[in-house]
Formats: sequence, C-alpha cells, structure tokens
Amino acid sequence: MVHKIENQYKEILNQYMQRQSEQNLYVGQNFSRQLISENISPEEVISVHKAAMQEIYKELPDVVWHSFDFLIEMMINYGLALQERQSLLQRQE
Amino acid sequence: MVHKIENQYKEILNQYMQRQSEQNLYVGQNFSRQLISENISPEEVISVHKAAMQEIYKELPDVVWHSFDFLIEMMINYGLALQERQSLLQRQE
Repeated sequence: MVHKIENQYKEILNQYMQRQSEQNLYVGQNFSRQLISENISPEEVISVHKAAMQEIYKELPDVVWHSFDFLIEMMINYGLALQERQSLLQRQE
Repeated sequence: MVHKIENQYKEILNQYMQRQSEQNLYVGQNFSRQLISENISPEEVISVHKAAMQEIYKELPDVVWHSFDFLIEMMINYGLALQERQSLLQRQE
C-alpha cells in the first residue's frame, strides 16, 4: 500500500467527516474504483481507514479500534474471493 | 439480510470485543466464510457491523457512525466486483 493512497484516503475521509454531502460520497466512490483497479484488498481499505481515523480522531475509545480490527478479519476472506475473480478474469483473456 | 445473521454477527462481535483472542478471531473468520457463501456483500457486512456497534456501544460519538457510512460507500464497488466473480464462476459451470 503506497503512502500516496493513505494520504489521499485521509484527505477524502476528512472531507466527508466535515460534511456528509452527496458530492463527498461521490468522491469516495470514485476513489474506491481506483483502489480496486490497483488491487487494494478490502481488508487493506479497512486498515487504511482505521489508520486515518486514528490520526484524525486520536481520542476515540479503544472499542472503536478493536471494532476495526474485527472488520479487517471479516474482510480477509472477501479479499481472497476477489483475488479469485482476478485469476478467473485472467484465465478468460 | 436475514435477522438471524444480524444476531449472530452481534454475538460474535461482542465476544471479540470482550476479549481479542485468537480463538475469537478464528470464529469471526469462519463466520465471514459463511457470509460470502450466502452472497452477503461487503457493504452489507459493514452495515450489519455498524448496527451491532450501535446496539452494543450506543454512546459513541457521531463521527464513528459517519465513519462507518463512509466505509459502506467505499465497499459498494468491492461488492460489484464480487458479483462479477459470481457470474464468472457460473459461466464456467
């Protein structure tokens, strides 16, 4: 996961946290398309999300960070399923 | 999303929140495999996660809930990519 993506994520999340507008959601959805095309797994997204939240909202209680750790674990198998899609697509080429 | 899954999720998350053990993580990973096999999308997982957290930790600040909403939006395109995997697999049968 490149540092550039982490900074971009933090920036886009921060904008959204200031104001939950349609426009900011739209930016987020476009960004997620970019992440998929760069083969960033869903568990990496949660991990970057957690790190961004920790920077922006240091004071949140520990249960919040534990909850993201749980989500990361939940997403690992989703990431594996997506890798399978990738290899199915390659096989078709 | 059936009510049973929401209750199961809350139960498994709650166990993990009490104690972040390897055992509890393992239960979570197994559960995520079940969710994938039932075609539960990643954005639905985040949505169920948010609802479970809201029940268990009512008092968390709004930024936490907004942050989950942002993650749901981020996962929508991942869900679409997974649907594609599903149809690629069916085409191979």
